Amino acid sequence: MGPHPAVAAIRLAVRRVLHDVLTEHHTIRTTDTTDGKATHPARDDERTHPLVLVACSGGADSMALASALAFEARKLAVRAGGVTVDHGLQDGSDQRATEVAGRMAALGLDPVEAVAVTVGREGGPEAAARDARYAALDAAAERHGAAAVLLGHTRDDQAETVLLGLARGSGIRSLSGMAAVSGASGRYRRPFLELDRQTVRKACVAQELAVWDDPHNADPAYTRSRLRHEGLPALEKALGKGVVEALARTAQLSRDDADALDSWAADVEALVRDEAGRLECAKLFGLPPAVRRRVLRRAVIAEGAPAGSLFARHIEEVDRLITGWRGQGAINLPGRVEARRQGGRLVIRQG
Amino acid sequence: MGPHPAVAAIRLAVRRVLHDVLTEHHTIRTTDTTDGKATHPARDDERTHPLVLVACSGGADSMALASALAFEARKLAVRAGGVTVDHGLQDGSDQRATEVAGRMAALGLDPVEAVAVTVGREGGPEAAARDARYAALDAAAERHGAAAVLLGHTRDDQAETVLLGLARGSGIRSLSGMAAVSGASGRYRRPFLELDRQTVRKACVAQELAVWDDPHNADPAYTRSRLRHEGLPALEKALGKGVVEALARTAQLSRDDADALDSWAADVEALVRDEAGRLECAKLFGLPPAVRRRVLRRAVIAEGAPAGSLFARHIEEVDRLITGWRGQGAINLPGRVEARRQGGRLVIRQG
Repeated sequence: MGPHPAVAAIRLAVRRVLHDVLTEHHTIRTTDTTDGKATHPARDDERTHPLVLVACSGGADSMALASALAFEARKLAVRAGGVTVDHGLQDGSDQRATEVAGRMAALGLDPVEAVAVTVGREGGPEAAARDARYAALDAAAERHGAAAVLLGHTRDDQAETVLLGLARGSGIRSLSGMAAVSGASGRYRRPFLELDRQTVRKACVAQELAVWDDPHNADPAYTRSRLRHEGLPALEKALGKGVVEALARTAQLSRDDADALDSWAADVEALVRDEAGRLECAKLFGLPPAVRRRVLRRAVIAEGAPAGSLFARHIEEVDRLITGWRGQGAINLPGRVEARRQGGRLVIRQG
Repeated sequence: MGPHPAVAAIRLAVRRVLHDVLTEHHTIRTTDTTDGKATHPARDDERTHPLVLVACSGGADSMALASALAFEARKLAVRAGGVTVDHGLQDGSDQRATEVAGRMAALGLDPVEAVAVTVGREGGPEAAARDARYAALDAAAERHGAAAVLLGHTRDDQAETVLLGLARGSGIRSLSGMAAVSGASGRYRRPFLELDRQTVRKACVAQELAVWDDPHNADPAYTRSRLRHEGLPALEKALGKGVVEALARTAQLSRDDADALDSWAADVEALVRDEAGRLECAKLFGLPPAVRRRVLRRAVIAEGAPAGSLFARHIEEVDRLITGWRGQGAINLPGRVEARRQGGRLVIRQG
């Protein structure tokens, strides 16, 4: 008798990612081999096998991921380890982290590490916790020389992320959710991004994995928690059960669209500048609005405006210097950058 | 004392649209003048003033629109009339339509017309009613030689439309909602697309307009109604009050992005075909995925696949002939169109 279908599904998802990691690792090592004799990693000594870490909170999604990684790594030329981050936001979180590390070790992961971080305040509690977590994971990956760090985000997390992006109303880049591969040189991988949370949870039950429910996930003080427990269910009730899948598909399509438009804007930028490198209003006017706004955004960021503080309405105002010129004055932008129209040129500089 | 702020807001919105209509009307008439002596429409005889119709269900949004049109038209070189459509879906709907026509006449609109339509079944009850309604409005506009037909959609309607598009998961074109100007030669105008429903409703109360609440709007059998009364409020509760505005902004940005990518796909199409006009797989492979998928979609539609039945997953399957070629067979698409890869070319034809 094979494994439970949910267990088979999570293992397949992890196997695919491990294959990608191995292929890339092999390619890199082959390229690195200066004597021209490439060796297949599967034939290597075990110490040279790439290390893949799982980032594990002890919750159902990442415990399922840890279990699948431990299982699949045994069959492949991959070493598997795990990291859990203690955010220090609740009493006894250090004990909890030690417990999670123990559970990972019991699955056969090695090395296993519990890392304590200090969460700042910048950008709100959720963003601050995320920043601290990724910094700790980056450091752990460097310390252990890991080829990849697996994250347990599911399709449901993706749907929530798309809705959070939608609430910003800042365009399709913010609708593109989380990437399957992200971070420095593609370090972070999300094997479960196309699996629904229910399947992942079932895999925990089927394997009798002890999991820990993060109380933050149910705390209505957190936007994502409200979205998960009230917003998305109401939306599903109104629009039907396919909403999560539709949102995840929207993420992928939006990401590709945003990438294509960004590359268009990058390509066209040199063509809309005069010999002195100044942006020519007449040439900008001839671009499709979607491309022009991206060129303007790039130009404003290049002069020092912080990308995170630059909203659609800022760019719209700069755009009106091109499309709705009626002699308006300089426009003040974040990062003390200002944009003005002068002699048919758009002059953007930091004050 | 000026009008109530809500009344001022709806009038301003309508005034802006009427100015656009007049400018375009003037431009067209100037172009038409063969003796070279253009006449300003404001100096014309009243019979030559452009006619603007309001499409009015008798509900609050379109009654507010009718009132603002009647008010503003008196101050401009514009004639104002109204059409109400009797969908025949409820007992007494004919009487209701006559009543709405009477209310429009009382506002000073002339001509005023109640048109009965027969609603089919195609595409579900909401789509069928919409198709019948627009056909009747088109016919009325032709009959009266109207320069424009105003529709009462608000920013809240736009937000709902974006969420309905999101539920399809078919990409950014379906997120782009309703256009401010649409239809044959820009006939349909939506002056309230940036006004919230609450403002429009307040304008009805302030003007003591009798309005009729369409029971369909509260009927949970209708997706839009469920979205309005349950889905969107829950989303606002989770994400904050700015959600409607964010969705409306997403619509505008997505529309511009989709337009730009469509034009890119149209421009590039000739470049990825060989001398015989066949699509070359190698050249397609070199395009950004977002552009390639649009080129494929255009090609499949050009061979006879009905656009409405062609989903993202169809195009993804065709795309895998380019990006994931492993000798797979012909792909069957809606409208008996099939796509196959043959000698490095993508062959799409109707069977």
